[in-house]
Amino acid sequence: MKSRAAVAWEAGKPLSIEEVEVAGPKAGEVLVRIVATGVCHTDAFTLSGADPEGLFPAILGHEGGGIVEEVGEGVTTLAVGDHVIPLYTPECGTCEYCRSGKTNLCQRIRATQGQGLMPDGTSRFSKDGRTIRHYMGTSTFSEYTVLPEIAVARIDKAAPLEKVCLLGCGITTGIGAVLNTAKVEPGASVAVFGLGGIGLSVVQGAVMARAGRIVVVDTNPSKFEMARLLGATDFVNPKDFPDTPIQQVIVELTGGVDYSFECIGNVDVMRAALECCHKGWGESIIIGVAGAGQEIRTRPFQLVTGRVWRGSAFGGVKGRSQLPGYVDRYLAGEIRIDEMVSQELPLERINEAFHAMHEGRVIRSVIRY
Amino acid sequence: MKSRAAVAWEAGKPLSIEEVEVAGPKAGEVLVRIVATGVCHTDAFTLSGADPEGLFPAILGHEGGGIVEEVGEGVTTLAVGDHVIPLYTPECGTCEYCRSGKTNLCQRIRATQGQGLMPDGTSRFSKDGRTIRHYMGTSTFSEYTVLPEIAVARIDKAAPLEKVCLLGCGITTGIGAVLNTAKVEPGASVAVFGLGGIGLSVVQGAVMARAGRIVVVDTNPSKFEMARLLGATDFVNPKDFPDTPIQQVIVELTGGVDYSFECIGNVDVMRAALECCHKGWGESIIIGVAGAGQEIRTRPFQLVTGRVWRGSAFGGVKGRSQLPGYVDRYLAGEIRIDEMVSQELPLERINEAFHAMHEGRVIRSVIRY
Repeated sequence: MKSRAAVAWEAGKPLSIEEVEVAGPKAGEVLVRIVATGVCHTDAFTLSGADPEGLFPAILGHEGGGIVEEVGEGVTTLAVGDHVIPLYTPECGTCEYCRSGKTNLCQRIRATQGQGLMPDGTSRFSKDGRTIRHYMGTSTFSEYTVLPEIAVARIDKAAPLEKVCLLGCGITTGIGAVLNTAKVEPGASVAVFGLGGIGLSVVQGAVMARAGRIVVVDTNPSKFEMARLLGATDFVNPKDFPDTPIQQVIVELTGGVDYSFECIGNVDVMRAALECCHKGWGESIIIGVAGAGQEIRTRPFQLVTGRVWRGSAFGGVKGRSQLPGYVDRYLAGEIRIDEMVSQELPLERINEAFHAMHEGRVIRSVIRY
Repeated sequence: MKSRAAVAWEAGKPLSIEEVEVAGPKAGEVLVRIVATGVCHTDAFTLSGADPEGLFPAILGHEGGGIVEEVGEGVTTLAVGDHVIPLYTPECGTCEYCRSGKTNLCQRIRATQGQGLMPDGTSRFSKDGRTIRHYMGTSTFSEYTVLPEIAVARIDKAAPLEKVCLLGCGITTGIGAVLNTAKVEPGASVAVFGLGGIGLSVVQGAVMARAGRIVVVDTNPSKFEMARLLGATDFVNPKDFPDTPIQQVIVELTGGVDYSFECIGNVDVMRAALECCHKGWGESIIIGVAGAGQEIRTRPFQLVTGRVWRGSAFGGVKGRSQLPGYVDRYLAGEIRIDEMVSQELPLERINEAFHAMHEGRVIRSVIRY
């Protein structure tokens, strides 16, 4: 079938709006009509060419909401008409990782997903006979996309897809890092580095966890107002302390925080986030994605004296079993998404969303098909 | 009073056997006659001058066993004749750290201890009017030493002090890192880097935790036999794999371990120990003490994909409340110490113990007064 899509023909070029060919779902797959999709920094990272695992041509996009249009052979857990969120971290429920009880990083289709292919090793996308790759197993920048059944979360039909699509990545990642990865306790102190969509979602998660103090750190103080609305209590602009390492500023402010979160992808900030943690027990969680080949570093003394260094991917959230609950919490008013949507754009204007993100003018742009 | 002691007059020189003056215990302090003391790598590290916090002249030694000879004013938990192990990590029970339930790093006397002084800011050691510093709050290389009450663990008198003195540092550090810091579960896989006294004690701890597979890594294969006796199951000599990073060797052998322990103090090995952990949940614990200014590094991707980087000091063991139980487990045959004592020497031959350690000829030398 035909589908409108924004195609990334090569790295470093704007997306090209095309009519592409989408093959129907094979066994264990479903065809989904994407109703809306967020545009995330990871899409921009890959499009820029900086992602060493980026493959082209491809259809990017991984923060979508849609409706099942067709199910392939053997699909039992989804039906036509279901409202769904595509999962770049699938949940097969049976692999070693899913069964471990310790991680959400299902590895069932990891190899083919990394190659931009469906589990059978082929692509469902093409244009004039030329194969176009999938991306993160989701490719939500196509109005119609094909997904493995294990990479689809069925959600409440009452939820507006142009909002809850953002639960497909950033918001869930931030909240989950607090609730699942760090397991922040009531009364704990928290520092959040970077107030993009993920950092603001960490603030939300910290409020949900009833943290006692939520220190936000950003070099752009215009972002503090939204953080305050969401529940942040302390606001630190590193530019106000040109002569003091920011970790020292935060230690002087708080005595060292119980938990810190890096939401930027800057390895120097990752170090600061670790080192502002409380001696004896502070835990730092890396959420941001660093550039290729970059490394974190610190003195081992930081760890020997009790700090813990962790990371989080998709907030440690198991997509099929936990994500529907996040949608329910949005509907119940516990998770705020509407405030994160800075603008809605039609697919034809998707490159404007990338520009706005590069310039820091938006939390999230949502594309509506 | 007079005491025989091995004095470190300056960095890089052998210890000098002297008769020093020991002042009696002040309020909250006790005088202990040291019966035996281990000689640990940390003593050698400080004596070498490489420890940036090393102060001289000082009386080193921190792995002792002794008997209380005199108690100062207000001491209520110890009495003359008690058998004790000095604690370089004290346990006051009332500071923020002791009350946190998350760490053993009591900070009550941290500042003065770091200066080589008793909590009142003075030293009890002198020679011909010249002040000699304490070391790690213990100074077990003096036959008589003065300790704060909170830095003394009272133990079962049935325990031979020339053996259980080693619970004052290395053995407890290794076992505690497994049981307290990592909390290794039955059936888990473990990798141990470095088979000195601490690494061998990690092997013991892993056996106590009923780990399923215990991989030991050392460039000196002569150490494998003792590790095998203690319960190690797999033996890896990095020299047998000159062209393969050791983390890759271990991942190929095990699929990635659930827990790894660095027991050397080498920052490159710390990286390998992290990176040989299982994706999704593997945790690496740094025990070794790195040289001044050295840094650990890795790609943040290692953490974002689920590995956790921790450290451990004194095995996370709270000295006054938990260490007596370690002595009891030795007496019950659950903790093996006798095999760790390679030689006993009189104080006069203490420099031989340092030489033997430098040459890798001993697990531990024990000095008997």
